[in-house]
Amino acid sequence: MVKDGIKIATIGGGSSYTPELVEGLIKRYDELPVRELWLVDIEEGKEKLEIVGNLARRMVKKANVPMEIHLTLDRKEALKGADFVTTQLRVGLLDARIKDERIPLKYGMIGQETNGAGGFFKALRTIPVLLEIAEEMEQLCPDAWLINFTNPAGMVTEALLKYSKHKKVIGVCNVPINMKITIAKLLNIPVDQLHLTFAGLNHLSFVMDVFVDGKSRLSEVIELITDPERQINMKNITPLPWEKDFIKALGIIPSPYLRYYYKTKEILEKELEEFKKGKTRAEIVKELEKNLFELYKDPNLDVKPPQLEKRGGAYYSDVACNLIASLYNDKRDIQTLNVRNDGAISNLPNDVVVEVNCLVTKQGPIPLAVGELPTPVYGLVQQIKSYEITAIDAAVTGSYEKALLALCINPLITNDVDAKNILDEMLEAHKTYLPQFFKNEKG
Amino acid sequence: MVKDGIKIATIGGGSSYTPELVEGLIKRYDELPVRELWLVDIEEGKEKLEIVGNLARRMVKKANVPMEIHLTLDRKEALKGADFVTTQLRVGLLDARIKDERIPLKYGMIGQETNGAGGFFKALRTIPVLLEIAEEMEQLCPDAWLINFTNPAGMVTEALLKYSKHKKVIGVCNVPINMKITIAKLLNIPVDQLHLTFAGLNHLSFVMDVFVDGKSRLSEVIELITDPERQINMKNITPLPWEKDFIKALGIIPSPYLRYYYKTKEILEKELEEFKKGKTRAEIVKELEKNLFELYKDPNLDVKPPQLEKRGGAYYSDVACNLIASLYNDKRDIQTLNVRNDGAISNLPNDVVVEVNCLVTKQGPIPLAVGELPTPVYGLVQQIKSYEITAIDAAVTGSYEKALLALCINPLITNDVDAKNILDEMLEAHKTYLPQFFKNEKG
Amino acid sequence: MVKDGIKIATIGGGSSYTPELVEGLIKRYDELPVRELWLVDIEEGKEKLEIVGNLARRMVKKANVPMEIHLTLDRKEALKGADFVTTQLRVGLLDARIKDERIPLKYGMIGQETNGAGGFFKALRTIPVLLEIAEEMEQLCPDAWLINFTNPAGMVTEALLKYSKHKKVIGVCNVPINMKITIAKLLNIPVDQLHLTFAGLNHLSFVMDVFVDGKSRLSEVIELITDPERQINMKNITPLPWEKDFIKALGIIPSPYLRYYYKTKEILEKELEEFKKGKTRAEIVKELEKNLFELYKDPNLDVKPPQLEKRGGAYYSDVACNLIASLYNDKRDIQTLNVRNDGAISNLPNDVVVEVNCLVTKQGPIPLAVGELPTPVYGLVQQIKSYEITAIDAAVTGSYEKALLALCINPLITNDVDAKNILDEMLEAHKTYLPQFFKNEKG
Amino acid sequence: MVKDGIKIATIGGGSSYTPELVEGLIKRYDELPVRELWLVDIEEGKEKLEIVGNLARRMVKKANVPMEIHLTLDRKEALKGADFVTTQLRVGLLDARIKDERIPLKYGMIGQETNGAGGFFKALRTIPVLLEIAEEMEQLCPDAWLINFTNPAGMVTEALLKYSKHKKVIGVCNVPINMKITIAKLLNIPVDQLHLTFAGLNHLSFVMDVFVDGKSRLSEVIELITDPERQINMKNITPLPWEKDFIKALGIIPSPYLRYYYKTKEILEKELEEFKKGKTRAEIVKELEKNLFELYKDPNLDVKPPQLEKRGGAYYSDVACNLIASLYNDKRDIQTLNVRNDGAISNLPNDVVVEVNCLVTKQGPIPLAVGELPTPVYGLVQQIKSYEITAIDAAVTGSYEKALLALCINPLITNDVDAKNILDEMLEAHKTYLPQFFKNEKG
Repeated sequence: MVKDGIKIATIGGGSSYTPELVEGLIKRYDELPVRELWLVDIEEGKEKLEIVGNLARRMVKKANVPMEIHLTLDRKEALKGADFVTTQLRVGLLDARIKDERIPLKYGMIGQETNGAGGFFKALRTIPVLLEIAEEMEQLCPDAWLINFTNPAGMVTEALLKYSKHKKVIGVCNVPINMKITIAKLLNIPVDQLHLTFAGLNHLSFVMDVFVDGKSRLSEVIELITDPERQINMKNITPLPWEKDFIKALGIIPSPYLRYYYKTKEILEKELEEFKKGKTRAEIVKELEKNLFELYKDPNLDVKPPQLEKRGGAYYSDVACNLIASLYNDKRDIQTLNVRNDGAISNLPNDVVVEVNCLVTKQGPIPLAVGELPTPVYGLVQQIKSYEITAIDAAVTGSYEKALLALCINPLITNDVDAKNILDEMLEAHKTYLPQFFKNEKG
Repeated sequence: MVKDGIKIATIGGGSSYTPELVEGLIKRYDELPVRELWLVDIEEGKEKLEIVGNLARRMVKKANVPMEIHLTLDRKEALKGADFVTTQLRVGLLDARIKDERIPLKYGMIGQETNGAGGFFKALRTIPVLLEIAEEMEQLCPDAWLINFTNPAGMVTEALLKYSKHKKVIGVCNVPINMKITIAKLLNIPVDQLHLTFAGLNHLSFVMDVFVDGKSRLSEVIELITDPERQINMKNITPLPWEKDFIKALGIIPSPYLRYYYKTKEILEKELEEFKKGKTRAEIVKELEKNLFELYKDPNLDVKPPQLEKRGGAYYSDVACNLIASLYNDKRDIQTLNVRNDGAISNLPNDVVVEVNCLVTKQGPIPLAVGELPTPVYGLVQQIKSYEITAIDAAVTGSYEKALLALCINPLITNDVDAKNILDEMLEAHKTYLPQFFKNEKG
Repeated sequence: MVKDGIKIATIGGGSSYTPELVEGLIKRYDELPVRELWLVDIEEGKEKLEIVGNLARRMVKKANVPMEIHLTLDRKEALKGADFVTTQLRVGLLDARIKDERIPLKYGMIGQETNGAGGFFKALRTIPVLLEIAEEMEQLCPDAWLINFTNPAGMVTEALLKYSKHKKVIGVCNVPINMKITIAKLLNIPVDQLHLTFAGLNHLSFVMDVFVDGKSRLSEVIELITDPERQINMKNITPLPWEKDFIKALGIIPSPYLRYYYKTKEILEKELEEFKKGKTRAEIVKELEKNLFELYKDPNLDVKPPQLEKRGGAYYSDVACNLIASLYNDKRDIQTLNVRNDGAISNLPNDVVVEVNCLVTKQGPIPLAVGELPTPVYGLVQQIKSYEITAIDAAVTGSYEKALLALCINPLITNDVDAKNILDEMLEAHKTYLPQFFKNEKG
Repeated sequence: MVKDGIKIATIGGGSSYTPELVEGLIKRYDELPVRELWLVDIEEGKEKLEIVGNLARRMVKKANVPMEIHLTLDRKEALKGADFVTTQLRVGLLDARIKDERIPLKYGMIGQETNGAGGFFKALRTIPVLLEIAEEMEQLCPDAWLINFTNPAGMVTEALLKYSKHKKVIGVCNVPINMKITIAKLLNIPVDQLHLTFAGLNHLSFVMDVFVDGKSRLSEVIELITDPERQINMKNITPLPWEKDFIKALGIIPSPYLRYYYKTKEILEKELEEFKKGKTRAEIVKELEKNLFELYKDPNLDVKPPQLEKRGGAYYSDVACNLIASLYNDKRDIQTLNVRNDGAISNLPNDVVVEVNCLVTKQGPIPLAVGELPTPVYGLVQQIKSYEITAIDAAVTGSYEKALLALCINPLITNDVDAKNILDEMLEAHKTYLPQFFKNEKG
């Protein structure tokens, strides 16, 4: 801890999301006195870092809070003595994401940032970098919490908890808070009167029950969200309506991402259309980002611009800042996080990462026990967890065989021969970011 | 038991497979003195029953064994006092199978006798009939073993073990013996020198290890079977070669049926071609059967005709007769059967049915412990088991919601909206055979 | 709910503990507006009910809160429309407890209110009465929470959750709060700055970790409590010091009750001494109670007398009132309760009752996940749980065989022959209160 | 393998049991052509080795089989190229066992060779020696099976499977075969017509069911063995009759060793009597052995003398020779062995050693799935397994704390303070054989 205040290091500080984070910290300054915010980025991101960093400084100045904004390319300097480290980096930037999305589609398979082959490649690129950061933290700030935003957030968190010495790691995602806010709106009640029982994996979670004032209102909410006009969705997912009878039979509320598994055929058709038009999500986001950075450059801008919300990361800042504030203040409130299971979902192993409600204490988040996932969803969750375990293994070892295996057992990659073709093309395309797969090659 | 010998009742006795069974019993007469074989069928199958029954009589006469062939439409008469009951019936006959295959394909989903929507509908039609038979057995022959051939054999067996009082039930399938014979041939050794460790579910099983003379030869066999010229296959599955690197990464040997899950896209393309030509597997089999019955009518035919082998049920007779002989004689040999798990696969619940090696004793089969299924296949197996549990529930209760749920969580049905359309069209098409779903309708 | 306030029914309202409860409700009136407190007892307890009830009325009057005290022998009248029901009854009163303690000691076995043969008989007498109450609640106040104090609290709660339709049941005990207060004192910090991770069963629990300001201070506390002068204890347990090296090896903090299992020989010797002197705990308590009721009669007494604290139930009132206040106000604070496991302790089944930290919400307590109990204590916990399951079964069915079995597998009853003798003598001694075991006898 | 035949190395070859083994090998020479039997012992056992070795040579000569008997003090010479290694050594000889029995009794705790404190010390002495042997085998005969007779056989086997690279290890015990022979006699049928379902741990096992000709005769056998005149027992256990109603309530058949847990008080009283008389089991056995070796010296003796049977190890030879013969000949028969669980008992972890029926194949024993241990016995089994895991850990690491912990959680050591005293006295008494606990001491 720095003198009379908190030090936060944000890896990937040049991200277009940073103004969100800064706004969140400013808002909470009374309970969360952040004295130093270090924005770290790499050489390629230097320009963006400057733009975003300067905006941050203007925001802090306007808000009149004594928070110092440090910009650096030296990660170790930033980590040293930090109390909290947040990671929002994107290895390979949006260009890599474009490849993640387009190459699978070439072979007729879903290409998406966190699911299927795209998400797999994002994991391969990201996990080694995060392991490196965790190792540095163990040296430079062993008591600090690592709060990971980088997708696929569940897999990255599991990789860290399994393979890093630094165990103070929590994965966060804005899907649960988005679902909560949407449901509160549908029920026309304040968010803090709503208790949702979450269970599952990151981007594969379910609301098992909905409580308001001690009573379950689950069936009412199921009725509401299966109305095509009122579905729960995220900016980056095509809003295809659920088959109402299916959701009623399921009896719980799937996260919007479950469309990838329960509406695979429709999603794939949509994506193939976008693919042909050169308008995959990554391509759209790249355009959005370009415009955002133009805005950020404006020396008169000293608040978070409203256009940022289109970007897709709504409430990311709230998720992160709430978590940090609760850890710091031992708030013991409930947040939905990616943590070691430890029995919370009793039909998954203890040592895997799950996305569940946790009580956030100063000593860390404690998952709330859910009991068993119901049979109909348990199978899918276990299948994805098997894939995740295999994929993490591939990311850490750089084994070609394990990588192929992970792809073949992923239910969104529906053919072993195509899996190999995608793997080979992707490995080549992302070669720079996948040194673990090329370590035996000669220069 | 009938006086000085065994009584067997075969439900669906008019099947084209019956000559196989009769041949098997004749061959084993010394150790398995079957005094009475009762072939039972329903009114619609009467003609076939006569044809097959007469052939059976000629076979017995030629073999000169004192086995009486009884033909009847009265199931209870056949069950009374039986020692073994075998079920090889097909509710709705091949015309129903044609629908099972063609309707899903209309919606772009795999149509197959045991997997996907087709297998689901076969289960819905079959399970109630088998439960009825088991109930009658509990009254008329409580000590008899029910040996179920009818597909989907694993699900039917699980339904019986969970919902019937009669617990002496074993499911059989000819896939394991086919794999064993093929591998023995590839290794150029006699079948009885080969020990395969099987684990999984019916039509979703794996050979975990291959032992010859106490040594594992697994990697050698993996090398062999990934040679497209030497793959392990069944008559009714398109022989698409495995991606070699995938199988090596998997490190165990998938049953030929695993193509439905690891080569879904290729299989679907082939099936759609056949669909357009009006040549789905059921349509081909119907043609084959017609020809077989023409042959069977020949009063000079008094042995099993070689043409039967094309039909697809190779070694079915051996599977059934070996099982009956081992139960009867307390042989304590190893057979691969569908039984209650009881920990044999330690990461599946005790009360589900699995396909594993069993020691066959007079008191029944005892599964051999396998330990855990490896992570990469465990996910898929658990997903299918979740589907199976839900599907069995739908078959027993006749719940429309559960039926839809089962379809939507099946990985071969890749869209909730299509699932509902398939369900609705199928329920209508098979209405006669699905009374449990229409019990509240007025005549 | 009664008009503008809460209705509480307390079964066994004539207990000497009642003034504690009344004091607790008075203190919390602002957040917990109890408009009606119904004290219920049976005919034999009528006199005590009057004495205690009148004291309660004087207390309420002095405190000047608008809480009505109702006294009744009609349980149904009390239950009707209640919001919370607390049970602190003692079937057979202290005379039964004296038998529970003395009869086992006659045979050289530990006699204790909640452990061993004594606790077993208390369970046999209590469980059927509680099941009856739960059934009445399902009719008369289906939304009310049943908060059970009656020992053995864990077993009674498990019996209710398994065999009653009314599932809103929570078991409470004052051991966790006593441990917490003692540890806070040892560390010289306020109680609310202390976070203890509890896990185990009622009267068989462990503090797995001790957190202050986010840091573990477990080893420091272990050092402190193994100092014979500073051990953690309860009024009713002989304060035998732990073998220091053993507790350090164990690495976690056992509840004082664990002495029954880790110091069996010493405890038994002490108890046999008391037995000879006619001074078992129940005999002492009977004397204490007599004196308490003399005090209670004093018409000038209008507060809880300090002598009550010797009775042994320190903080019982806080436990109960805190729980009710948190349920009522959706406080979402942490309390250590007896609830359905649901994976909180991942190496125990989901459907057993455990004593763990819970988050108390308006919809009920949610257990916090602990992960696995460590190997060295897991064995004992599982052994006691096996006994508890068997004992509950005996209590519900009235099966002599199951009762004998439960005794023989209890580790404090160290001989099958003695077990039978104890069982036979006890059944006769408590015949009036064990109708389930004599249902086939003629009058 | 030696030229045209088998090489067996027997560690502890100077044991009085060796003539049993030799007789067994002679009897089975046709199916098990042992060309070389190497009897290995240590310097202190040299004289006994000579005596027993010469008797073995006379036996072989009389039987006229071409088996060479080699005597050696050089273990590595014996292990080199062996096909099977059997271990029947006793670290510290019978004098150590006398201490194992007498020291705990001094403190009022059961002293026994395999249970309680005595068994624990035997484990501490034995496990490191066996680990050394396994390590040598990995170098000198990596394909050989290690067949361990040395008690506590279950714990030793688990220690080897967990901590040694050499995984071809099987633990054997003569309790199951003794139970089988006794039950066959009680039912008046040949042993090979009897099928017993065994489950549990070594010296803590149960017969779950009894089948003859496919029918359960369990209740009949329970009736028989609770007749005090017909109980199942072993030479070294006081034949205290079971409380009949208890065994009927248990519903399965406990091994004779279960008396230590279900009749602790009676057993302890008996042992304390023997202790006072200087007639503990070890003291009696020492006397028996002395007499046996006198007999063995007789140059005219060329068969196993009948007096050996009093020694207690009835059928040990059959157990070992049957196992070796089945492994060698791929017999695939059922034997009750100590092996890795792998789900066979589904409510115990996969990686612990259990005593269950196995199918013995050339590639090793495969456990038969049992399902769950019933609740009433599960608790005790889990408690002992927790102790065993902790004790093995202590034996391997030489940790004083873990050793104390193991003793304190053993249900036969009923006081933590006594546990420490016993530990301290025992460590001193066996110091020579427990180098792992004294490694930091200076000479």
